Amino acid sequence: MIIVMGQGAGQEDLNRVVSMIETKGLSVHLSEGVEHTIVGAVGDVRRLVVEELEVLAGVQRVVRIMHPFKLASREFKAESSVVNVDGVQVGAEQVVVMAGPCAVENRDVLLETAEGVAAAGAQVLRGGAFKPRTSPYSFQGLGEEGLRYMAEARETTGLKVVTEVLTPEDVDLVASYADILQIGSRNMHNYSLLSAVGEVDVPVLLKRGLMSSIEEWLMAAEYVLAKGNEKVILCERGIRTFEKYTRNTLDLSAVPLVKSLSHLPIIIDPSHGTGRWDLVSAMSLAAVAAGADGLLVEVHPRPEEAQSDGGQSLKFPVFQEMMRLLSPVAEAVGRTVNVREAT
Amino acid sequence: MIIVMGQGAGQEDLNRVVSMIETKGLSVHLSEGVEHTIVGAVGDVRRLVVEELEVLAGVQRVVRIMHPFKLASREFKAESSVVNVDGVQVGAEQVVVMAGPCAVENRDVLLETAEGVAAAGAQVLRGGAFKPRTSPYSFQGLGEEGLRYMAEARETTGLKVVTEVLTPEDVDLVASYADILQIGSRNMHNYSLLSAVGEVDVPVLLKRGLMSSIEEWLMAAEYVLAKGNEKVILCERGIRTFEKYTRNTLDLSAVPLVKSLSHLPIIIDPSHGTGRWDLVSAMSLAAVAAGADGLLVEVHPRPEEAQSDGGQSLKFPVFQEMMRLLSPVAEAVGRTVNVREAT
Amino acid sequence: MIIVMGQGAGQEDLNRVVSMIETKGLSVHLSEGVEHTIVGAVGDVRRLVVEELEVLAGVQRVVRIMHPFKLASREFKAESSVVNVDGVQVGAEQVVVMAGPCAVENRDVLLETAEGVAAAGAQVLRGGAFKPRTSPYSFQGLGEEGLRYMAEARETTGLKVVTEVLTPEDVDLVASYADILQIGSRNMHNYSLLSAVGEVDVPVLLKRGLMSSIEEWLMAAEYVLAKGNEKVILCERGIRTFEKYTRNTLDLSAVPLVKSLSHLPIIIDPSHGTGRWDLVSAMSLAAVAAGADGLLVEVHPRPEEAQSDGGQSLKFPVFQEMMRLLSPVAEAVGRTVNVREAT
Amino acid sequence: MIIVMGQGAGQEDLNRVVSMIETKGLSVHLSEGVEHTIVGAVGDVRRLVVEELEVLAGVQRVVRIMHPFKLASREFKAESSVVNVDGVQVGAEQVVVMAGPCAVENRDVLLETAEGVAAAGAQVLRGGAFKPRTSPYSFQGLGEEGLRYMAEARETTGLKVVTEVLTPEDVDLVASYADILQIGSRNMHNYSLLSAVGEVDVPVLLKRGLMSSIEEWLMAAEYVLAKGNEKVILCERGIRTFEKYTRNTLDLSAVPLVKSLSHLPIIIDPSHGTGRWDLVSAMSLAAVAAGADGLLVEVHPRPEEAQSDGGQSLKFPVFQEMMRLLSPVAEAVGRTVNVREAT
Repeated sequence: MIIVMGQGAGQEDLNRVVSMIETKGLSVHLSEGVEHTIVGAVGDVRRLVVEELEVLAGVQRVVRIMHPFKLASREFKAESSVVNVDGVQVGAEQVVVMAGPCAVENRDVLLETAEGVAAAGAQVLRGGAFKPRTSPYSFQGLGEEGLRYMAEARETTGLKVVTEVLTPEDVDLVASYADILQIGSRNMHNYSLLSAVGEVDVPVLLKRGLMSSIEEWLMAAEYVLAKGNEKVILCERGIRTFEKYTRNTLDLSAVPLVKSLSHLPIIIDPSHGTGRWDLVSAMSLAAVAAGADGLLVEVHPRPEEAQSDGGQSLKFPVFQEMMRLLSPVAEAVGRTVNVREAT
Repeated sequence: MIIVMGQGAGQEDLNRVVSMIETKGLSVHLSEGVEHTIVGAVGDVRRLVVEELEVLAGVQRVVRIMHPFKLASREFKAESSVVNVDGVQVGAEQVVVMAGPCAVENRDVLLETAEGVAAAGAQVLRGGAFKPRTSPYSFQGLGEEGLRYMAEARETTGLKVVTEVLTPEDVDLVASYADILQIGSRNMHNYSLLSAVGEVDVPVLLKRGLMSSIEEWLMAAEYVLAKGNEKVILCERGIRTFEKYTRNTLDLSAVPLVKSLSHLPIIIDPSHGTGRWDLVSAMSLAAVAAGADGLLVEVHPRPEEAQSDGGQSLKFPVFQEMMRLLSPVAEAVGRTVNVREAT
Repeated sequence: MIIVMGQGAGQEDLNRVVSMIETKGLSVHLSEGVEHTIVGAVGDVRRLVVEELEVLAGVQRVVRIMHPFKLASREFKAESSVVNVDGVQVGAEQVVVMAGPCAVENRDVLLETAEGVAAAGAQVLRGGAFKPRTSPYSFQGLGEEGLRYMAEARETTGLKVVTEVLTPEDVDLVASYADILQIGSRNMHNYSLLSAVGEVDVPVLLKRGLMSSIEEWLMAAEYVLAKGNEKVILCERGIRTFEKYTRNTLDLSAVPLVKSLSHLPIIIDPSHGTGRWDLVSAMSLAAVAAGADGLLVEVHPRPEEAQSDGGQSLKFPVFQEMMRLLSPVAEAVGRTVNVREAT
Repeated sequence: MIIVMGQGAGQEDLNRVVSMIETKGLSVHLSEGVEHTIVGAVGDVRRLVVEELEVLAGVQRVVRIMHPFKLASREFKAESSVVNVDGVQVGAEQVVVMAGPCAVENRDVLLETAEGVAAAGAQVLRGGAFKPRTSPYSFQGLGEEGLRYMAEARETTGLKVVTEVLTPEDVDLVASYADILQIGSRNMHNYSLLSAVGEVDVPVLLKRGLMSSIEEWLMAAEYVLAKGNEKVILCERGIRTFEKYTRNTLDLSAVPLVKSLSHLPIIIDPSHGTGRWDLVSAMSLAAVAAGADGLLVEVHPRPEEAQSDGGQSLKFPVFQEMMRLLSPVAEAVGRTVNVREAT
């Protein structure tokens, strides 16, 4: 870290900066320029907080040279991580498709959906049992009953199961049913929850907050990693912008960017990312071409009956067609997709 | 709610829309236009979800006429609410100033700060014992120890105490020390936490999410109100935009807007709203002129020693000067401030 | 258009609304609901302005059913437009790659670049002679001298030429040299300029404003089309968001969205869209997979010597590799790329 | 400016950086740290472009210490500028209120409005003769006819006149009628236009672009100043965000921020800033409390008849009441307002 002292800074100001750095166990390299004295902090700069230094008298600018995340970084681990979800490898050659309804509504529809997406080549079933809803008057999910249906769908189809956990006290419960714990976009900054899922030995699907920078997102991953859970899968799902035709703006540049900054696998949720079923297929192809390790797609046998997000869900035939289109694109970039031809 | 059918919509499409509305207990008023058939839903439209209707075949547009929040709305309660914080009235004639450090760092600094802000006219002491931090390597707060210092500061100064709660399981603990429970910006969408603070009888300071719309914010308040806790104080603290000179963009238009939409009191946090101590005083004056019911300001005896957010904290003399400047502005808009002349 | 009258609206209010609609030559269809009277305006609703109606006493909501653009819309012209750039077809099966330096700096570098990109398969040479620069102290371009070099490069390589025009009075000059007139992001709302390029018979490359919604962008195209120039190519180049790792956020969902709303071809500028050369290739692949009709890419023989935007420019070998990677992706979605194998 | 070399940078990389700096006439101060070599550039660093340095091999970070604007900066001119508009001083003790319709629609309404706002204390009449409109089918303004009505209104009321100019070729025409040339939000990045108004001796009202940073805005002012026109008045009019209740988000923190960065006066447009007439008064009070030097407010005798922006225009009685409320707030912050009591 480099601290640039202002032109009017005195010796006392300089001493205070040096003292703060040394107090935290780092050493100091001083350089007196023509206009500015520059202080270099040498050592584990993650112990220093930019804001603490900036506020010191005489300090003009503080420049962080390193990223604030460590365990999540490519520097820490050069090789790309592959997260093993009970045999399904996320981050390996095959692009993993996770599909299913937004919310688990009832047993029959879930099982029907599970069979439909499995038949088309999905390897993981998505579905929310605990739902974060903007309105307290909206359907909040079936809770544990929904988890049981997810587990039953796993039995009948062989799909792995990903589902959201909303609060630390539910982590053990959800982990007892799910193959992947999903941290939703609204909870990306919920550090209590991040710490809680960091303490179990279950893969975590960490959605980017709709208002979060990529740096904050990787810092959220750092919370999980720092607690000891290395099985983190990142999921970009659209950020909030001024554009109104789409529900969110899907930031696909996050794919190559995350791959350069981090070793963690990254998948794309084009359903929430656009909010429109008619854009999902095109954005799925784009995601795979950009290098995504997987997709999280909403599928529903009859979207017009769905209790949430029906407008962004694909019907079976559209999903099958999408899987068919994905295959040559995946191959074009050296990947594969588990597409199955309709019989 | 009004549902506009597309030009190609058939009788079957229309029947499906009518059926969904009637299933939820509302009645229907049909109007056949030259180009479009329009379906009006009459009754408690909060039972209808726009997205569920939009996805039905033949539907072109769904238009919500009413706001999605009810208990928080001005229509539900025409009279402005005053939240009684153990004798300090938030939403009454006097503008309530809440001040203190970002985080409770140690007993001595907290007591020193409490005395400093009380002497200048603050009526509530702010200070975080549980801190949500972007980095897992940053200071996370003193926890219950910090709460005890806050309570001690209340004893010695008579100030009321506001402090943040991060997770549902801590609500009872924090409520046993605090006069106001703060829900931070990062937790505005944490519905488990909102529900939990809705179930205690302690005033709640609900910060706007840094990328949340005002409608979503009032829906978050609705969660608390729906659980039975009517003592909600809203707090605007800046939203995330592209501007880089300030940490956030303080949205002061939220003040008159919230006052027209809702009966709840609203206060302003110019410290997080700008991230720069040198802008805090000007924005505090502006907030009071716009009609804010209070301010939440970071004050620290020696910001250069603060463990978080030092750059946005006011020193005592600046805070005193700000209180002095506030008084005539408050009077100009028919309000008062509890300013005390330095002796 | 549908106007929803408020519950308290009287007969006089209703008359005023009806009168405004009829004055503009449209007819009215009235429907009295249980709670609201609804006024439908029938005819060419583009003559009505939402804001003019919203402000009338008694009006609660005005709902536009149709898009505000007409000539640009898919409804107006169902078949996708192909823009013929002197033999190069934009919007046809082949994905058209436009490449070159940000600014024309001098004759030698431009000719070198033109040969380099042509050898790799580019069909159009990009390069700015008039440069819009944030600082008045930055290099503003070579002006007509730069245009002459562009024309010379066309002679020697056979590439078509696209270059920016900044002001109405330069349109004829630039049009006398260029095959495509570029309207830059900062000028998307410059209606005088849009009208001016609408009056010449030269293809227009219309970049999306960095702060513009897709609707506003299509309205900008409408300005050009309304003046009689049908040869409009849209170009998405990233929008401004809070994310800081990238210069802009490339909105690839604009590709399928524009294709559903409009018949105009759309290309992608991944160089400005990301601001980082190391992301350009991945985003180019994604753009083609999403259905883009072309790419606009910055290439420079020695980016470290470039007078602007060097950090987002590709060197020749990286550009050649990108072209090679594009080919199978284009084929995977039924398109082709004019890739040439290095000899 | 400080250039931080990466850990792997070699002597050749360093030489290239030093050479670029020296070529531009600056001198170099080298400092070899433990991990990084740091290059300080000493001299007129505005000749250096950050992006040109960042792209050089071996460079890790480039840190700008000074602002990129010079003539607009407080460092260049410590004393606050007062712009003399034919006797009305903008930036002096009195808060200057500019009011009138969005567009000049016809002679009678304009004269009626001018008399109404003058009677309430406005000192400058606003009104657009050339209107930038999103739709080519909307009313585009009366052109020179509108300018004549503005001049006539000046004759009859004594008000000064501010009106927008859209294109360089119209600058002389508009300047022959107007006391202040307005550069609208959509043209803040129109550098041809900025240069053109920099060459006349008429005050310029420079609106912030709706998605422009404050730095970019001050750079736009720099264009005008660099051409020799020192009479620049800045006008904040709201920025584009995700919030939907308001048309834009009014960034009032721009007031104290601009005052610290620049010597130029700054006024606020709460009409476009919120898009809602019912928020205009509260935000005007807030603007004055924050230190604004003036207001730009839309007023119309009958907003329901206005051809644009009726929903954000104040009627005469509301405007008069606003002026009455402004007076004590202005006094509270040491300013005055030219309020006139209704007779």
